[in-house]
Amino acid sequence: MEGRARRLIEEFGLDYLPEEFKAIIDEKHMYVSRGILFACRTSEDIRKIKEVRDFYALTGIMPSHEKIHLGTLAVVESMKAFQKKSKLTIVLVADLEALATRNVPLDVGRKYALEYHIPTYIALGLDPDKTIFYFQSENVDLQKIAFDAAKEITLSEFRAVYGDANPSRIVSVLHQMGDMLFPQLVEPMYGVIPVGLDQDPHIRLCRDYLKRTRVYNFKPIVGVYIRDVPSLDGQGKMSKSEPHKAIFIPEEDYKTLRRKIFKAFSGGAPSLEEQRKRGADLSKDVPYKILEFVLRDEKQLRKIAEDYSTGKMISGEVKEFLFEYLKSFMKDFKEKLEQARELVKANDIILIHNRNDLKNII
Amino acid sequence: MEGRARRLIEEFGLDYLPEEFKAIIDEKHMYVSRGILFACRTSEDIRKIKEVRDFYALTGIMPSHEKIHLGTLAVVESMKAFQKKSKLTIVLVADLEALATRNVPLDVGRKYALEYHIPTYIALGLDPDKTIFYFQSENVDLQKIAFDAAKEITLSEFRAVYGDANPSRIVSVLHQMGDMLFPQLVEPMYGVIPVGLDQDPHIRLCRDYLKRTRVYNFKPIVGVYIRDVPSLDGQGKMSKSEPHKAIFIPEEDYKTLRRKIFKAFSGGAPSLEEQRKRGADLSKDVPYKILEFVLRDEKQLRKIAEDYSTGKMISGEVKEFLFEYLKSFMKDFKEKLEQARELVKANDIILIHNRNDLKNII
Repeated sequence: MEGRARRLIEEFGLDYLPEEFKAIIDEKHMYVSRGILFACRTSEDIRKIKEVRDFYALTGIMPSHEKIHLGTLAVVESMKAFQKKSKLTIVLVADLEALATRNVPLDVGRKYALEYHIPTYIALGLDPDKTIFYFQSENVDLQKIAFDAAKEITLSEFRAVYGDANPSRIVSVLHQMGDMLFPQLVEPMYGVIPVGLDQDPHIRLCRDYLKRTRVYNFKPIVGVYIRDVPSLDGQGKMSKSEPHKAIFIPEEDYKTLRRKIFKAFSGGAPSLEEQRKRGADLSKDVPYKILEFVLRDEKQLRKIAEDYSTGKMISGEVKEFLFEYLKSFMKDFKEKLEQARELVKANDIILIHNRNDLKNII
Repeated sequence: MEGRARRLIEEFGLDYLPEEFKAIIDEKHMYVSRGILFACRTSEDIRKIKEVRDFYALTGIMPSHEKIHLGTLAVVESMKAFQKKSKLTIVLVADLEALATRNVPLDVGRKYALEYHIPTYIALGLDPDKTIFYFQSENVDLQKIAFDAAKEITLSEFRAVYGDANPSRIVSVLHQMGDMLFPQLVEPMYGVIPVGLDQDPHIRLCRDYLKRTRVYNFKPIVGVYIRDVPSLDGQGKMSKSEPHKAIFIPEEDYKTLRRKIFKAFSGGAPSLEEQRKRGADLSKDVPYKILEFVLRDEKQLRKIAEDYSTGKMISGEVKEFLFEYLKSFMKDFKEKLEQARELVKANDIILIHNRNDLKNII
């Protein structure tokens, strides 16, 4: 395990992934072997999930006009890995949150989600026959949890966890708890939620609430933490707020894609001679790090790692490789996106509205 | 108009009821002639309602284990008066708010509402063929307004208006705005909400929000203010938090009813002799004030006022009269309550779930 991951686990009070983790995920998935999923809250709960076997995997879509980037791809990839073992896979569209925090009207958010986000999640490999979607604004049962959570969490806690406590933040967080626990309105069941570290406050607060509630009988939700996809300049994580430092799915054109990749921060030495002599520092090389998130072929990745770190391969070659790889990835994605759009248009996805709908599926 | 009413209008920045008010209410109703409905926010909006004619009258039920008292009766009585002219009459069950602020589980609140509150409102005279009921927890459309309101109202405003800003308070207030404006999701229309002065903060904040929203096209809601039914000891208003100073509907038994009335604060002088000589001070006499809220016969009320204030009638007689009147009122109420319960059991009321249901009715 990287030193950085170890530091984060200690700093955030997370747990290392226990041996039992492999029982609740597609253990052959590259995110497991590569340590991209690197921590959890908590390992004890993961052991219990292994015992009881049933759990749901859950994630949310924020329907805004921006495309998703490689950071979100990592979440979808993780969901795919859990889908192999989960009883339920749930992807909710946070259209109410988009309204409250980003001023996206509900009809606009709905359009984004149906035309882009949902097809994208399917095109990236979530099984449309096994993935349950819903819109927050159509789900009447979330508020039943949100109102209960409202009385169990104080304003000071909100402020301590989030720094601010605007009404829009408060209702969004309370509803998000509704989302995270919603499947349990049908049947108490462990939930697994793959997230970036920045989402840990939500996980923690929700875990606090579910222990406190006097109304519901909830099983814990478990956060499984995904390593951050780095920003192209190597500073922090990839984010849509800095579009020139992120790779979107799809990128507008291959020229842009190529330019972005070639400007990415490199772990190679400044001169060709030094690169050949010293090899690249993979721990700082953004193109290599991105390959870890997207390149499925393990042998190929290892070969690149070896050649690049020993100077057999140079930065330009790795960038060219990544460009070609992502170019073909994007091509493939666009085709699948069209197919997925047809699926959505034909109502051939599982779109539920409330607890009763979910009950009928289980 | 009483001096007290005038003071309140000035203090709260309310408007006097304009002449046009009589066009939007059953003008022969005793609450109009007696000035029990004494102020509004705003008179300009009432004039506009008279022009456009369409409006909805709306009130809410808090489903807790307590029975309603005469203060709530005054709200129902006002709703009846508006129902004569309103396009829609809406009574919502605030079961989510009861959950968040009073720890009433949703299934329990539902039971209270169906077995007691809704039948009571019908037994008291709301027309079951024209009154639309819904439960907050079943209405998915409220949150569409609540989330929009969340971004238009700051935490400081919540604190300024309510003194505190607990999460349960915040979600309850935001949802209440959803309630007050919900009918307008079908069709922009003025709303009239009869309330006690203590509800004015809700009215004000909601009026602020509906001017600010960038998403919806709402017409104003108008608060029409009901004089407070006095507490039996004459100190402040009748409240269920002081049950021995309130008269419930129905009272547990006539003995209790009689005892409460005879202990009520009197405007009569201490000795019989003085009562005969000076007459009673009606402005301080609780039994007389209660008669103003319940005794329909105008002539009878005037006669009592005259006789009592001149010493022809004494406190004991007025109390006895009130007791007999309320006793017969309660008897009658209990019969009607049973009938109304049958109606509710047979699903013979208008119980809607969302905007679409309402659309189909209009």
